[in-house]
Amino acid sequence: MIDAGFPGKVYPVNPNAEEILGLKCFSDIRQIPDYVDLAVVAIPAPLVLDTAKECGEKGVRALIVVSAGFKETGVEGASLERELLEVCRRYGMRMQGPNCLGIINASAFLNLTFAPYMPRQGNISFVSQSGALGTAVLDWALKEDIGLASFVSLGNKADLDEIDFIEALANDLQVKVILLYVESIEEGERFLRTVRQVVRRKPLIVLKGGTSSAGARAAGSHTGAMVGSFTAYQAAFKQSGVIPAQSVEELFDYAVAFSSQPLPLENGVAIVTNAGGPAILATDMCEALGVKLASLSEETLKKLRESLPPSSSLHNPIDLLGDARADRYRAAIEETLGDDAVGSLLVILTPQAVTESLETAETLVDIGRGRAKPILAVFMGGRTIEEASKHLMDNGVPCFDFPEKAVRALSALTQYAEFLKRPESTPQVFSDVDKATAHERIESAKREGRVVLLPHEAAEVAAAYGIPVPAAKLAMSLEDAVRFAEEIGYPVALKVVSPEILHKSDVGGIALSLNSREEVGEAYAAILTRVSGYMPRAQIYGILVTRMFPQGKELIVGVDRDVQFGPLIMFGLGGIYVNFLRDVAFRLAPLSAEEAQEMVEETKAYTLLKGVRGEPPSDIYALVDILLRVSQLVTDFPEIVEMDINPLFAYEAGKGCVAIDVKITLSRG
Amino acid sequence: MIDAGFPGKVYPVNPNAEEILGLKCFSDIRQIPDYVDLAVVAIPAPLVLDTAKECGEKGVRALIVVSAGFKETGVEGASLERELLEVCRRYGMRMQGPNCLGIINASAFLNLTFAPYMPRQGNISFVSQSGALGTAVLDWALKEDIGLASFVSLGNKADLDEIDFIEALANDLQVKVILLYVESIEEGERFLRTVRQVVRRKPLIVLKGGTSSAGARAAGSHTGAMVGSFTAYQAAFKQSGVIPAQSVEELFDYAVAFSSQPLPLENGVAIVTNAGGPAILATDMCEALGVKLASLSEETLKKLRESLPPSSSLHNPIDLLGDARADRYRAAIEETLGDDAVGSLLVILTPQAVTESLETAETLVDIGRGRAKPILAVFMGGRTIEEASKHLMDNGVPCFDFPEKAVRALSALTQYAEFLKRPESTPQVFSDVDKATAHERIESAKREGRVVLLPHEAAEVAAAYGIPVPAAKLAMSLEDAVRFAEEIGYPVALKVVSPEILHKSDVGGIALSLNSREEVGEAYAAILTRVSGYMPRAQIYGILVTRMFPQGKELIVGVDRDVQFGPLIMFGLGGIYVNFLRDVAFRLAPLSAEEAQEMVEETKAYTLLKGVRGEPPSDIYALVDILLRVSQLVTDFPEIVEMDINPLFAYEAGKGCVAIDVKITLSRG
Repeated sequence: MIDAGFPGKVYPVNPNAEEILGLKCFSDIRQIPDYVDLAVVAIPAPLVLDTAKECGEKGVRALIVVSAGFKETGVEGASLERELLEVCRRYGMRMQGPNCLGIINASAFLNLTFAPYMPRQGNISFVSQSGALGTAVLDWALKEDIGLASFVSLGNKADLDEIDFIEALANDLQVKVILLYVESIEEGERFLRTVRQVVRRKPLIVLKGGTSSAGARAAGSHTGAMVGSFTAYQAAFKQSGVIPAQSVEELFDYAVAFSSQPLPLENGVAIVTNAGGPAILATDMCEALGVKLASLSEETLKKLRESLPPSSSLHNPIDLLGDARADRYRAAIEETLGDDAVGSLLVILTPQAVTESLETAETLVDIGRGRAKPILAVFMGGRTIEEASKHLMDNGVPCFDFPEKAVRALSALTQYAEFLKRPESTPQVFSDVDKATAHERIESAKREGRVVLLPHEAAEVAAAYGIPVPAAKLAMSLEDAVRFAEEIGYPVALKVVSPEILHKSDVGGIALSLNSREEVGEAYAAILTRVSGYMPRAQIYGILVTRMFPQGKELIVGVDRDVQFGPLIMFGLGGIYVNFLRDVAFRLAPLSAEEAQEMVEETKAYTLLKGVRGEPPSDIYALVDILLRVSQLVTDFPEIVEMDINPLFAYEAGKGCVAIDVKITLSRG
Repeated sequence: MIDAGFPGKVYPVNPNAEEILGLKCFSDIRQIPDYVDLAVVAIPAPLVLDTAKECGEKGVRALIVVSAGFKETGVEGASLERELLEVCRRYGMRMQGPNCLGIINASAFLNLTFAPYMPRQGNISFVSQSGALGTAVLDWALKEDIGLASFVSLGNKADLDEIDFIEALANDLQVKVILLYVESIEEGERFLRTVRQVVRRKPLIVLKGGTSSAGARAAGSHTGAMVGSFTAYQAAFKQSGVIPAQSVEELFDYAVAFSSQPLPLENGVAIVTNAGGPAILATDMCEALGVKLASLSEETLKKLRESLPPSSSLHNPIDLLGDARADRYRAAIEETLGDDAVGSLLVILTPQAVTESLETAETLVDIGRGRAKPILAVFMGGRTIEEASKHLMDNGVPCFDFPEKAVRALSALTQYAEFLKRPESTPQVFSDVDKATAHERIESAKREGRVVLLPHEAAEVAAAYGIPVPAAKLAMSLEDAVRFAEEIGYPVALKVVSPEILHKSDVGGIALSLNSREEVGEAYAAILTRVSGYMPRAQIYGILVTRMFPQGKELIVGVDRDVQFGPLIMFGLGGIYVNFLRDVAFRLAPLSAEEAQEMVEETKAYTLLKGVRGEPPSDIYALVDILLRVSQLVTDFPEIVEMDINPLFAYEAGKGCVAIDVKITLSRG
């Protein structure tokens, strides 16, 4: 604190010292003759509770508890942590940690970590659930001379968590980019709500640890974190506009690009290079990551032709040839940047005989100043380009050592820009749903102590939300069955309904493809005979008469409730293929219309639904409608923990989709 | 050459100078009063031809032509390059280039490039089709103090190509690892043949540029390279044991790991760390890349429990906690390395309050010396770990700045080790094939000027190679048709055979599911009536009577002939799914039994073939047999440019597979 030049007052508290580093030391915080904002508690765990109480009595507003020995050590530690949190709540104190490394706020000259030095003041903030990753980042920032605005070590997150800090950093004018390393997010829905707002103002780049099952186990033992399903995290990040990083390196690379560059208005990069190979590698990576190469206008090509040597390759990537000096780079860059099709620029330099690395870097800095288009540099090599690379980084042009890294960063910039262009996602809410009926069916199952709805109940709940299901009626008598069949229309199926009979076909409880009142009558009697033969004691609710539908494209819609993020909706191809192809898309409910559409488009099944081999397209509109209605249903009824529509038959465009079989499971109690 | 300390003689040749850098200069190479091994030609392109002739007259053995202005500039340049090659051939000279940057051989103190300095002598060789990438690598090696054995710039590869240099480097005792950057490989089969031998002796790491369509276009304009299908390259790399790198960074990271570490005998890594977060990220990456975390033995766990603090996490990753000093690392590493289940070690260090970076590095170097297990280090952070990191690198322990990079390198080591464990791939050759019949059918089509075999011809060719096809006979009369049907067995199909009728069903030329002699008779007459009505002039070869088969699992086998690598065999799921799921595997023929089996296992269809939902498994043995027979067929007959079996029906294990429809296309002329 002292070395970092913190201008406020600092009071050491320790019962065994008179003075620490020249400052008078107090044996008890309550003796400090002054108002205290914040206390940093770095004492053995067993002493923390009493000290926290003393802080509370003193009127301290916030605690940073560095001490370890809490939840991460097991049951006893967890109980101590709960007590500590209670103390904080009682005195109205907020707490960071415990088991954390503290906080740095560069613009306040405040360093409350172990780090022996301050990073250069900058606009990047890093919030980390791993303290060690934090120190590594601080160290890296110092070496690379990257400016940081702040660093937060989350520790056990007993009180303040990543969401609180993200909210605060969103309002911090010093901060342009927020980085987050996180192993678990406990309050998924709050995270989503907050982040959706934050990303409209500044980019949030997240690296998630514990994505593998072994990694998740390690994370569990590490901070006692409850690590949820990675699928839910991925959906949450995608839907909220978070920029996901796949590695620490990507986290850094993205930070450097986002902190200094404007966002591209167009997805179209121009690559300017003095060497073929690296430009080819960059082009390969662009294609792999969805970054488009800009098609230069005739005018730009004409200008380039005039100012570059005849053997230069003008077709993007623009190859200036190995003997390009800084002036050739300047000409090419200026003309390229003026082209409206060019949304961003990637400048590649390799050290060759007459290459002017530093002058080229200066040119880039000069041209880049005040431009609304992002410029990323790739200067490959070691010592020869060291000075040039430093000049670029010091002057706000991100410089990478490998083309692939620059393209990854550019892809992140581009995707974020595209995300911001889309309207804010608003969950679709249908007003034509019959919530009362759905409620009634669910309640009646609950009253009877059933957690799995009977098939016709599940179908009725779905129907109440406007999801097309086959017409079905529960017959209590042979006359009912025949009358219902006539009303519904043939062909029909009969199915016995009984909470005790799970596998209806095993007891002869099903008859399919009945085409007349005679067939229905015979089948009704036969089912009752067979069932009472097999399971004489089973309670029979009746026989369900259902309209049979022709085979459509077999799809599946499923819902699982994620512990952290709530209902996770799955869509994919049905039949045997769902099991082994895993051609499925996931999103968290509630869904917006765009999200539901995206879900469908994300799967390979989409190609099939659009119509292959001259087949007519399927009714994708109706399919999206069903996804949205499922989303609304499971959002309205949190007690639905699982829901499956399998199969969902999709017919030709205009002819709709039908949820052939609906299964709904409720939470216990 | 002089600065690098080349001990041999150097003669400058230039008509305008008396002396260059203190050396007497000759106006013509023929005036040099000495035997000349090698001439480096760096003069304008139009003068190269005459100079090459003079070199030839002088008896020079090899040329390095640095000059640009050849194939890469267009048609004229290409013609000049051909003339240059002719001159070389005439005089028995080998040539590197033209349009190259030369060569470095560090152990010979020979630097024939523009690079103004020599890399440290080491055991890594880099062969590059991009000169610029080469200079960048030289520069990088110097900065990171990585030792190189040699560097080769391939240029236009008019004479010597990557295969020649790989062969030479394989025999160079100074070289432990070969790196290759390549945009195109012209002689695919020779490449495969050579590389299969080389990789048994030393690792070959390849970065392929131009994998995307845009990248390939750029590569084409860059060195005039003909860039083949990336699918064929991928198959070639996989089958020959090449280690593919996805980026320049990976190329370097792999080089560092392979040049210093032994190969792991077991796929099982132990991760030792002083920080949770980075270990979790490493674990995630291990799972993603197929590196298994070793299960430590009870004995090892017991020893670790004795020597580590009680709150350490012993479950791999082994977390030594933030206050681990070098001695704790030593204890954990020594005990872990002694465990037979541990094939490799990943040591992670982040700078924390009491961390001893340098001492830990020294410990690692000390323990690693002479060990037969690879050790990779991840020291995260900047200045604090700089010295430690350098100590590791200088002493043969690869040190990475990010955990993901180390795991990628470890995965490459592991995969290469697994590859070497497998026996050398020997193409399966069946002796029971009837090559004469296949030859006859192919020749008869050629004689008639047809490049697409008629369906029954194709089926006969397949049958000659032991591929099961439905029994079929060509009937010239109604009596024939009925007799054949009786012989073959019902149900049968009838199909008109005519080179002019491509879409048989459009002209009513097909009748299916015929179950009696009466049905066959009627259908025969009806087909002839319909066909002669629609296409009165069509030449009718007859009516094919074919046994109809029940529906099996619908698969597809295809063959395309790649320009560079020869026949590329494809296997996948058939039906409409092949089009939109792209669940296919590729391998180059000739296939070994293991490769054919791998092909099948690589697809998601494999799950289906093994039997899902209690279905019996399909006859995978018969399927692999068919793949091998197709491989032999297309290898024996280079004139087959395309072959398709679609559908191939697979039945239950033991019941075989049948090639329902076989299509074979021959090359023209």
